[in-house]
Amino acid sequence: MLFFLCNFYAVSYNRVMTNSAITSIGVDFGGTSIKMGVVRGTEILTTAPSIATQEYSSPTELIKAIAQFVNMLRIKHPEAQVIGMGMPGFVNFYNGTVYTLTNVPGWHNVDVKELLQKECELPVYIDNDANCMAYAEWKLGAGKGKKHLVCLTLGTGVGSGIIINNELLRGAACAAGELGQTSIDYRGRLGHYGNHGSLEDYIGNREIAADARTLYANNGIDRAIVDCNPIALEKAALAGDAIAAQVWDGLAQKLSCALMNCCYLLNPEAIIIGGGVAKAKSLLFNPLMEIMKNQLAAPLVENLEILPAKFGTEAGTLGAATLALHTHFGEN
Amino acid sequence: MLFFLCNFYAVSYNRVMTNSAITSIGVDFGGTSIKMGVVRGTEILTTAPSIATQEYSSPTELIKAIAQFVNMLRIKHPEAQVIGMGMPGFVNFYNGTVYTLTNVPGWHNVDVKELLQKECELPVYIDNDANCMAYAEWKLGAGKGKKHLVCLTLGTGVGSGIIINNELLRGAACAAGELGQTSIDYRGRLGHYGNHGSLEDYIGNREIAADARTLYANNGIDRAIVDCNPIALEKAALAGDAIAAQVWDGLAQKLSCALMNCCYLLNPEAIIIGGGVAKAKSLLFNPLMEIMKNQLAAPLVENLEILPAKFGTEAGTLGAATLALHTHFGEN
Repeated sequence: MLFFLCNFYAVSYNRVMTNSAITSIGVDFGGTSIKMGVVRGTEILTTAPSIATQEYSSPTELIKAIAQFVNMLRIKHPEAQVIGMGMPGFVNFYNGTVYTLTNVPGWHNVDVKELLQKECELPVYIDNDANCMAYAEWKLGAGKGKKHLVCLTLGTGVGSGIIINNELLRGAACAAGELGQTSIDYRGRLGHYGNHGSLEDYIGNREIAADARTLYANNGIDRAIVDCNPIALEKAALAGDAIAAQVWDGLAQKLSCALMNCCYLLNPEAIIIGGGVAKAKSLLFNPLMEIMKNQLAAPLVENLEILPAKFGTEAGTLGAATLALHTHFGEN
Repeated sequence: MLFFLCNFYAVSYNRVMTNSAITSIGVDFGGTSIKMGVVRGTEILTTAPSIATQEYSSPTELIKAIAQFVNMLRIKHPEAQVIGMGMPGFVNFYNGTVYTLTNVPGWHNVDVKELLQKECELPVYIDNDANCMAYAEWKLGAGKGKKHLVCLTLGTGVGSGIIINNELLRGAACAAGELGQTSIDYRGRLGHYGNHGSLEDYIGNREIAADARTLYANNGIDRAIVDCNPIALEKAALAGDAIAAQVWDGLAQKLSCALMNCCYLLNPEAIIIGGGVAKAKSLLFNPLMEIMKNQLAAPLVENLEILPAKFGTEAGTLGAATLALHTHFGEN
């Protein structure tokens, strides 16, 4: 009986997954704004207006606002099967609760899945936002077809998600995949959790800018803050500015340390890098690969690729929607 | 048909695994010596004399010597079903070849599984030695029943193996789980692969002793080399020697950095530590847990245990034998 049920299930699942009419709703819950859209495959068919995260006094109020927008999207897309939401913090994928959100006060032990399901009457799945991004790259993007992946986005912070053996790595309490918090210096800068030398405290956009300004100042050059964002530093380095080039070299050195730690521990096939800093391809990807070729044991580097992410800011919405759809129909 | 076959397979597997007459042979291939024994459950029933690894001119000759000893053990234990061998280097578990061994010259791309199977006419499974140790702790030792584990042994080097989702983590090229090569300082000591700040280059027994001697010398105290081994340093610290205590604090600080990196990436339930240094329980485990409580995000530390390994030097033989038996009968 079980055998036939499984077969039936597989057939109906395949029908769903290849049926181009099937959509799901992805919600990208950020510390500043919440975006959402109806997703089919790699396409975002419709989006709702952004919600200003901090303008709601309680999780319940904010979830009601999200539900209103979701239900609005469903008027045009009644075929949507499921809702997925990526959230910036420690999220328990299995029971659908948020443990805590990093930059959104008041979110502790909130039963998001239950609350949102009640408002929308659709199945809801939640996960960490970087896990959703990694899921999008793995299922639809630069990591398609790979079994072992490390995906990261570089921005204000470092978001990351890990795929192992064709499965998103969540760990014992759904708290795995925090590359930004791993240390590159045991006596280094004091970080968010009292830890030392966290990658994020060296290669976050603000930290890159501050370090660049210090380097310019040490060389007797004053630069306005605006000049030290990744785009300006890229332009300067490409135009022959030796100090800007030094900033990029330092960035590659620090990032490669954390990525090699991933390689020595996880032996991935590919590392996928997205976000603002990653747009400077020749200044980042080439030096990274060069360092890693010279500092990784042969079996780790021989088949390793470092790839730019396929998706930009849409990764969160795409990933959340896809993860929810696949999870609902029993796929990893 | 497949359904019935699967069922039959499961029944016969369970019969084998609960049948106390079933044994397997574990071979612990070290850089200096090779030990082996017949294993039933957690018990090594019989051992063979050690083989001096470096006295054989070629892999083929050494494999023949191993086979002779294995076949000798089988005279008394004809019920042995399978041979497992743990080896110190990059080993491809899936195809049974050794990519390279760290301290044994001449071992490159050796088809160990095929050669040993031919000599013994028994199924052979090989894996990295630290993976075998981790397997023993996971299946039979301190990590029994856990789904997410990091296991390490501290000695001349740092050996480690990782369990994720009830599976030994091997990665894309069976090269995962090399905690000893992960960096704790991106500008740190130059390591074996050209990498910087490898954990092993700070907390290997030799490095601990050298750093301790430096610390004593800086404080105007001359100590003989023999005084700076882990046992002597433990005795000294427990007797109130402030410099020895400082050595242990430094060790906990460096090791905790690498272990917290594992936690932030993998979110394990437990970290299991064995080997010489780990015998100094109060000097190592308490400070480690203290640091990690203060420097890990709450969801990562709330259910984390740091446990001493159950097994000592027998872990290699036990793990190799158990891994081979389980693999042969289709278990992770």
